[in-house]
Amino acid sequence: MDMANLSGSPVHKVGFPPRRNFARGLTDGLKETFFADDPLRPYKDQPRSKKLLLGLRFLFPVLEWGRDYDLSKFKRDIVAGLTIASLCIPQDIGYAKLANMEPKYGLYSSFVPPLVYAVMGSSRDIAIGPVAVVSLLLGTLLRAEVDPVNDVEEYRRLAFTATFFAGVTQAALGFLRLGFLIEFLSHATIVGFMGGAAVTIALQQLKGFLGIDKFTQQTNIVSVMKSVFSSASHGWNWQTILIGSSFLALLLVARYIGKKKRNLFWVPAVAPLASVVLATSFVYITHANEHGVKIVRNIDKGINPPSAHQIHFTGPFAAKGLRIGMVAGVVALTEAVAIGRTFAAMKDYQLDGNKEMVALGTMNVVGSMTSCYVSTGSFSRSAVNFMAGCQTSVSNVIMSVVVMLTLLILTPLFKYTPNAILSAIIISAVIGLIDYEAAFLIWKVDKFDFIACVGAFFGVVFISVEIGLLVAISISLAKILLQVTRPRTALLGNIPGTSIYRNIEQYPEATRVPGALIVRVDSAIYFTNSNYAKERILRWLRDEEEQLKENCLPKIDLLIADMSPVTDIDTSGIHALEELYRSLKKRKVQLVLANPGPAVIEKLQLAKFIELIGQDKIFLTVGEAVMAHAPNTMEEA
Amino acid sequence: MDMANLSGSPVHKVGFPPRRNFARGLTDGLKETFFADDPLRPYKDQPRSKKLLLGLRFLFPVLEWGRDYDLSKFKRDIVAGLTIASLCIPQDIGYAKLANMEPKYGLYSSFVPPLVYAVMGSSRDIAIGPVAVVSLLLGTLLRAEVDPVNDVEEYRRLAFTATFFAGVTQAALGFLRLGFLIEFLSHATIVGFMGGAAVTIALQQLKGFLGIDKFTQQTNIVSVMKSVFSSASHGWNWQTILIGSSFLALLLVARYIGKKKRNLFWVPAVAPLASVVLATSFVYITHANEHGVKIVRNIDKGINPPSAHQIHFTGPFAAKGLRIGMVAGVVALTEAVAIGRTFAAMKDYQLDGNKEMVALGTMNVVGSMTSCYVSTGSFSRSAVNFMAGCQTSVSNVIMSVVVMLTLLILTPLFKYTPNAILSAIIISAVIGLIDYEAAFLIWKVDKFDFIACVGAFFGVVFISVEIGLLVAISISLAKILLQVTRPRTALLGNIPGTSIYRNIEQYPEATRVPGALIVRVDSAIYFTNSNYAKERILRWLRDEEEQLKENCLPKIDLLIADMSPVTDIDTSGIHALEELYRSLKKRKVQLVLANPGPAVIEKLQLAKFIELIGQDKIFLTVGEAVMAHAPNTMEEA
Repeated sequence: MDMANLSGSPVHKVGFPPRRNFARGLTDGLKETFFADDPLRPYKDQPRSKKLLLGLRFLFPVLEWGRDYDLSKFKRDIVAGLTIASLCIPQDIGYAKLANMEPKYGLYSSFVPPLVYAVMGSSRDIAIGPVAVVSLLLGTLLRAEVDPVNDVEEYRRLAFTATFFAGVTQAALGFLRLGFLIEFLSHATIVGFMGGAAVTIALQQLKGFLGIDKFTQQTNIVSVMKSVFSSASHGWNWQTILIGSSFLALLLVARYIGKKKRNLFWVPAVAPLASVVLATSFVYITHANEHGVKIVRNIDKGINPPSAHQIHFTGPFAAKGLRIGMVAGVVALTEAVAIGRTFAAMKDYQLDGNKEMVALGTMNVVGSMTSCYVSTGSFSRSAVNFMAGCQTSVSNVIMSVVVMLTLLILTPLFKYTPNAILSAIIISAVIGLIDYEAAFLIWKVDKFDFIACVGAFFGVVFISVEIGLLVAISISLAKILLQVTRPRTALLGNIPGTSIYRNIEQYPEATRVPGALIVRVDSAIYFTNSNYAKERILRWLRDEEEQLKENCLPKIDLLIADMSPVTDIDTSGIHALEELYRSLKKRKVQLVLANPGPAVIEKLQLAKFIELIGQDKIFLTVGEAVMAHAPNTMEEA
Repeated sequence: MDMANLSGSPVHKVGFPPRRNFARGLTDGLKETFFADDPLRPYKDQPRSKKLLLGLRFLFPVLEWGRDYDLSKFKRDIVAGLTIASLCIPQDIGYAKLANMEPKYGLYSSFVPPLVYAVMGSSRDIAIGPVAVVSLLLGTLLRAEVDPVNDVEEYRRLAFTATFFAGVTQAALGFLRLGFLIEFLSHATIVGFMGGAAVTIALQQLKGFLGIDKFTQQTNIVSVMKSVFSSASHGWNWQTILIGSSFLALLLVARYIGKKKRNLFWVPAVAPLASVVLATSFVYITHANEHGVKIVRNIDKGINPPSAHQIHFTGPFAAKGLRIGMVAGVVALTEAVAIGRTFAAMKDYQLDGNKEMVALGTMNVVGSMTSCYVSTGSFSRSAVNFMAGCQTSVSNVIMSVVVMLTLLILTPLFKYTPNAILSAIIISAVIGLIDYEAAFLIWKVDKFDFIACVGAFFGVVFISVEIGLLVAISISLAKILLQVTRPRTALLGNIPGTSIYRNIEQYPEATRVPGALIVRVDSAIYFTNSNYAKERILRWLRDEEEQLKENCLPKIDLLIADMSPVTDIDTSGIHALEELYRSLKKRKVQLVLANPGPAVIEKLQLAKFIELIGQDKIFLTVGEAVMAHAPNTMEEA
């Protein structure tokens, strides 16, 4: 059948897409933008009662999976829940310090939010609670507004306000189906940002780890290192260093064991709590706290007190809380959604990003009214949860119950816990956030991505967490805009023995067609690149003509533009094509288009460009365009 | 030869591009971004003296075209120069008022800058001087900082400071080869912005046109209309209205004649000056100025005084001047480059955007030191220049000389010129900026472009010039980002009688391949869309499988991803492909790629994705992928 093509006679017509009116086009576009996952599909052709039920199930996935829940699943959830509880309690106490809050607020934040998430969330593997990076970010942003030491009350109010608005932001993003906005944080950016945050957090721990009294308020590496070295002569406490470093070594060994043998995953998971118990007993017995070893001191007994009345809903503090909440909320979302997606892909279930955001947002709004600060899904605890064999978010409920019992009964036991052990636990936890393998892969695959990654890393380490985030987002957006501004172009040649035309740089065996230049623009043609694309095509032509002249070959009289990758065009793009057509006409070169897509052909027709160059100058493939031109070339040659 | 393909046996290998090292890749990328026009090509393999000469010619194109200049060209340039001079003198006086400056500064700005441009500019058709939109923009921005009525001296100093920094910005953009940044103002945006500015300027003229004393400082339509109607009872002057409207009618008729008969282009070009002469004589004879008709009064005699000492180079006013200058400079550039490109395309010569920017920037820096405010290429005067047959920028020199003579000798004659005639001239000039035909075409071709256009228009008309500009740029960028976030995807089918596969929506005759789903993603796969692309492909698959189930057809076991339009991929994109591969594997669907481009195949190999899915799962075309799969389908069916 293809022989027909080779003889050059029957040329296939380029199809026009069915005309859509404006409203239809707009609806389709909006639907694809905001409802890409088609969330309303199950509701189609259902009676109203069924729709209500489906809607409830949508909001509260527990109604969905709760029906199939059984004892065997519960058993596995209990194991997973107990494991993550033992990991989360010491982490919570440490992370609260990163946010400049008392330890109990870390525990509070691991009690209420997981319960809300268990009802509304749809990830089965995520473990909810405070996380290191968000705690640090929140602490840094809040401290810029209120002094956490001298104005504890106001600081806490602003923290709850920020948490409230973080929740509102998250829920709003999900509800307005703007979840795709967080995709503007690229993988490379997140790797860099997380790595930078981990280094910053680890550096902050030097305070507790070395037992330094006077420590900088800044988070950048230069200030921290100055603080550390200026206190070296008098401010370090050897007992503290001894406790910290021996337990850090223990934790790192546990981490290593867990990594090497997957069935020993519980070793690094319970190691922190075991270390806390050991270190606390040691201090209690040796009275090391009387020799300069700082301890946690009292943690109030009792579960979360209500805090709704402490939130600023109006006034300047509300505005500050909104700004801080938006930043912290988006970063928290990014972490939770990334984790959720990773584990959903592993177990092959669908995760609705927008729905997750509503769940996480509601969880933080409820949290802000029950003395919690921003919680989200934690990398380290979720991984443990997954490996411990969690089946549903019931494991979060188990963890929450354990935290509650701790708050009610066990808090006095933490009195003699040395701060150094908490620092050691945080350091060993955040080390996992430094993903140098991913960074190396990024370097290998895409240098520009690597620049974004490194930019985020250094921004966080050398300046501050917010600046690092800003740098990373700016580089990522600049990358997109740059690539939209300077699309690739390629010259095509015929692959011998076929009617296929491909990039001659990629396929060196491809042969050029005498008298014709075949150019492909590898991008939609928009206002950002329309002039460049036009000029670039003319430059290909000039370069080519110069070479032909040198070799005394016949000149080019046909320019075939392969439009296959040109997925869309706007009015500026059509202008550029018109100018290209006119420039080529002056040089006696015929412009021919091959394989324009539906959006392009429709717009070219509306703008009367097809009338301008002639319906017969548009071909289905480059091959057919060459065939149609072949007789002319022969005559002229 | 193609028969070989049909039988399914010899499959063509996908080519790998030659490996480039990082430095080479980076250099190529930077070169394509900043030196897309390859400006150094003529210097290659030339002796040093020749290089110097070429460099001088590059900076001063007059050295290039000056050698071929002759009497016949000079004659045509004189005609064109005199025509634009007669148009520019009354415009200059009016535009200066838009910038809240005395009339003489408009004339100054048509004297020095055209001379500088004549030496450094490379457009042959552009006519330099103050323009309506930039004058209005500058006036609005400056008035927000300094009161132009009560603090004339400081206002003027800030105007020169802004002009200086506008020039520096323009030259810097050109010198740093960042000229492509102005392409972020799309055609649609410019149409809307210009239209809105024209309406705003015309509304401002109601003050002079109706002879109103108390007029709002705001430029938005609501404030202006309030001013107009509140003054209706007492503030309008019928003599002024009579003069204004009769001459406006005259000018519009002249405009109409010029549009209908191209050889009468000089009618609208000389009509303004003729009107000024007529109206001035009329006022002088009838003493209408004693009956409330406002007149220009004295314009100082003499050419531009130096003003370098008035520029603020440091301090808070320098910062303000910098900000205003950057905005005004970029808008001025956009207008000049758009005009330059339009006429260059008509006469088919190349225009180096970056070089033009250096010329325009130098011109404004020199202007700021010789009592000029921001000048640029004017739409209306350049069109007249072109139609009057200008050959080179010598026509600008002629215009400049006429303006100089006017400043030296004729200014006293403008004393009795009524303001109403200047308003009429400005209105008739800016009407040409309202390009409703372009707006209609944009509406027809691309609705999103139209939203940007209308957004810019309403932003300028209802709020202010700066806000309109901001709205327009934001919408344009949002469009790009949205389209990068939600690329089109398509299902492909076989065009009967060929081995070509195309979008089944565009080609309804295309037939589906049983047991296989062929999907094409119409965009580079980046972090912004990688998740969407993955989910969308899985949705296509789910939809398809549901349909097949209903019709009891064999299930799908092959998913061919046509990568032709996927021009690039980043690490997030590769992750998404890996996740897609795993999801498909769980469903027992084989993933196969067709025609990946050079950048994609290189990165997929570096990331070991090709190892993952297998080298034999990558095909040159969709057709070959289908062929290779065909035997399996048969077995299973």
